[in-house]
Amino acid sequence: MSDPSKVAFLGLGAMGFGMATNLLHHFPNTTGFDVWAPTLSRFTAAGGNAAQTPVEAVRGAKYVVFMVTSAAQILSCLFDESTDTGTGTGTGTGTSTSAATALEKGAIVILCSTTPPDHARAVRQKLDAVGRGDVAVVDAPVSGGTVRAADGTLSIFAAGTEADVRAAKPVLDRMAGSNLWVIEGGLGAGTNVKMVHQVLAGIHVIAACEAMGFAARLGLNTQWAFEELQRGEGNSWMFGNRTPHMLVDDKKVYSAVNNFVKDIGIITTGGRAAGLPLFLSSASEQVLVTGFSAGYGAKDDAELVKIFLPNDLNLVLEQTSLTTPSSKDVSKLELVANLLAAVHLVAAIEATILGAKVGLQPQQLFDICVGAAGTSFMYKDRIPQLLSGKWTSKKTVDEVIAELKVSVEAAQQLKYPLPLSGTVLQLLQLASLRGLGKEPDVAISRIWDGVDGPLFPGSKV
Amino acid sequence: MSDPSKVAFLGLGAMGFGMATNLLHHFPNTTGFDVWAPTLSRFTAAGGNAAQTPVEAVRGAKYVVFMVTSAAQILSCLFDESTDTGTGTGTGTGTSTSAATALEKGAIVILCSTTPPDHARAVRQKLDAVGRGDVAVVDAPVSGGTVRAADGTLSIFAAGTEADVRAAKPVLDRMAGSNLWVIEGGLGAGTNVKMVHQVLAGIHVIAACEAMGFAARLGLNTQWAFEELQRGEGNSWMFGNRTPHMLVDDKKVYSAVNNFVKDIGIITTGGRAAGLPLFLSSASEQVLVTGFSAGYGAKDDAELVKIFLPNDLNLVLEQTSLTTPSSKDVSKLELVANLLAAVHLVAAIEATILGAKVGLQPQQLFDICVGAAGTSFMYKDRIPQLLSGKWTSKKTVDEVIAELKVSVEAAQQLKYPLPLSGTVLQLLQLASLRGLGKEPDVAISRIWDGVDGPLFPGSKV
Repeated sequence: MSDPSKVAFLGLGAMGFGMATNLLHHFPNTTGFDVWAPTLSRFTAAGGNAAQTPVEAVRGAKYVVFMVTSAAQILSCLFDESTDTGTGTGTGTGTSTSAATALEKGAIVILCSTTPPDHARAVRQKLDAVGRGDVAVVDAPVSGGTVRAADGTLSIFAAGTEADVRAAKPVLDRMAGSNLWVIEGGLGAGTNVKMVHQVLAGIHVIAACEAMGFAARLGLNTQWAFEELQRGEGNSWMFGNRTPHMLVDDKKVYSAVNNFVKDIGIITTGGRAAGLPLFLSSASEQVLVTGFSAGYGAKDDAELVKIFLPNDLNLVLEQTSLTTPSSKDVSKLELVANLLAAVHLVAAIEATILGAKVGLQPQQLFDICVGAAGTSFMYKDRIPQLLSGKWTSKKTVDEVIAELKVSVEAAQQLKYPLPLSGTVLQLLQLASLRGLGKEPDVAISRIWDGVDGPLFPGSKV
Repeated sequence: MSDPSKVAFLGLGAMGFGMATNLLHHFPNTTGFDVWAPTLSRFTAAGGNAAQTPVEAVRGAKYVVFMVTSAAQILSCLFDESTDTGTGTGTGTGTSTSAATALEKGAIVILCSTTPPDHARAVRQKLDAVGRGDVAVVDAPVSGGTVRAADGTLSIFAAGTEADVRAAKPVLDRMAGSNLWVIEGGLGAGTNVKMVHQVLAGIHVIAACEAMGFAARLGLNTQWAFEELQRGEGNSWMFGNRTPHMLVDDKKVYSAVNNFVKDIGIITTGGRAAGLPLFLSSASEQVLVTGFSAGYGAKDDAELVKIFLPNDLNLVLEQTSLTTPSSKDVSKLELVANLLAAVHLVAAIEATILGAKVGLQPQQLFDICVGAAGTSFMYKDRIPQLLSGKWTSKKTVDEVIAELKVSVEAAQQLKYPLPLSGTVLQLLQLASLRGLGKEPDVAISRIWDGVDGPLFPGSKV
């Protein structure tokens, strides 16, 4: 029978291990499962139970948390049959069975892995198909990194039926603390929030690489440039978090390129499904997969700056201690600042429009992202204008074009590639062509106008 | 005094040498100038005269042809002062002077180098400023490669005042044979034609690289894929011309990457000046400058396929003799064919809209490009529909999206970058968002609609 104190935790990777060990403080009877033996031993050493199969793990558990790396692994854990040895904490039947069958009556399945938005619904349907309508399913992707995973302060975007989410709360609260967001829209809505957040986070990481490589090619002191750029309109949480990784040679993998290769793939797939053009997400994906093919998959994502500097991979690092910047450097820095600001402006709008298109409540989405790793100066400043329809931005589309042109021309002289800001300039010119040139820069959002008019109507005040 | 049989030819590079030696057959008294001594000796060996300075070259010449590599070199040759030794064919003054001053009365300056569109007008103004209003100036960029240069059958796009172009005809006819095009619009119009042609040629070269790298990553026999793809809607003159260079390991430089780095730079600069978004030209430029930075500048442009295959640079070459293609391969090839067709469709429209935007006569522009290296199946088939306004294409925007999606998803699985076709999919989705999904694919042109409505209105027939 289901033991309210028992949690089954499947997937003890970098994030999962921290989440599971944190849960041990509140659910001492937590059983972990992972295909990689060493992490299982570490978990038992930390005081948890170890299961050899998913079936064994879920046996007797009221809560079943998935933090494996993919949707395919979740389906395999739940629906592949294995011989139920009855070892570990459960009592086995000795016959071949699946975890879906072995789940206790009324067990609560909590899906924390980042998966395609339709995955949670697919799990629900497959459980119903095998007669497990009694089992609760909650779509609960997380964000925040390994430290917050171990602290139990992850941002979690929980969605599902009201009853299922309520049933999962005891565990969700322990993993998220005050950072639990309940998302309207049913299974998939939580994943949609995560997806939109990753649009921002993913583009911002590539933008940081594009900008810092440009700063280096302009001959700037990259340490100085980083500090100055953080003060400007092109700053973002990711810029502040990733750029320092380019400025030290510690070979440390803070976040692997593969994470964003996977997430941006989910995003562009979502864009195609929604029939929505995602210019910057697509351009970022090209850089990410090029990096993957070039062997950067398991390396730190800040190393993607090297994709922009094939002729001098370590230029950003080499220029951290150049001589004191001159006044000429200050104007060169302006070229980078304007480029960053323009990319972050369009990224903020691309993400917000995707969110609205997949049915998320725009204000809640903003409240979530503005406090998370996807935030940026532009997102915080311009999106409220987009949502309120009051375009108070003092800068017009044509003024952004004029600034960005100078940056693009300087990069052209240096033969430096600008996959993101080059795309942004085309989009801004498209908006200007449509007569939006004299409007506040937020009007770039009108590019995505559908036949039924704009998703976010607005005008200057 | 000006000798009607004398031509001064400045710039004896790969193209210029062929052009000048061909002119020798008709103007035996042709004097060449080049900063590189060996090519000068080759020219005298071929029967020409050699000048040590531009001043010396132009002395006594009725026709002065420039085929140097840049606008800066033309200005330097014409307006920098040098001591007039009076050696060579002219009679020197012994004083310091410039070629602009030394030009014979009524001399005809023919500018064949590819330069920014405003360059010819700048030359005209500078000549007027030094009191040489008597000198004729013709904007006459060329296209066709070294063989046609030596044959005297280059495509030449001549523009200027009617009188000046007429005055230059004796020489233009010898260089172009039946391929001389007189372009309306005055100085710069000829260069605009060349620029628009290079939009097509440049995008098509990068598209060939993107497509063949994709074919290789799909595991196809690349020789077979090349032959099959030529039969499809994604074929272009450049695809047929460049792809064979990827399939042989001859290390030969047929056309250096640097040529297109320069030309596409002129194009995107022109797009910015016209305030016109050029998505594919910009995306192609990112690939070109990345290639330049990676050390491919002086290499054959077909080698840019390696930029798409960082993990296996020679994959296209390695797979020229794979086993006989299976039926599975035929459906994989379809993925590449659809991708090529979609990119060539949008390239044809991007080029045509740029041409109209810079004031070129669309039908003449089409007549020129359809017979030149910039032509493609899509250009030949769809642009007449665009110009006539009768959209007879049987394929709708949504159908192109549906096909391209499958290709993009396959590339995503392989982690293969699609800077061009990825951009094209976003543009097609943008058109569909605007309610153009059920229209013939030519309707993608409506993306560039300005406030005054479409440059090329049209509807299905």
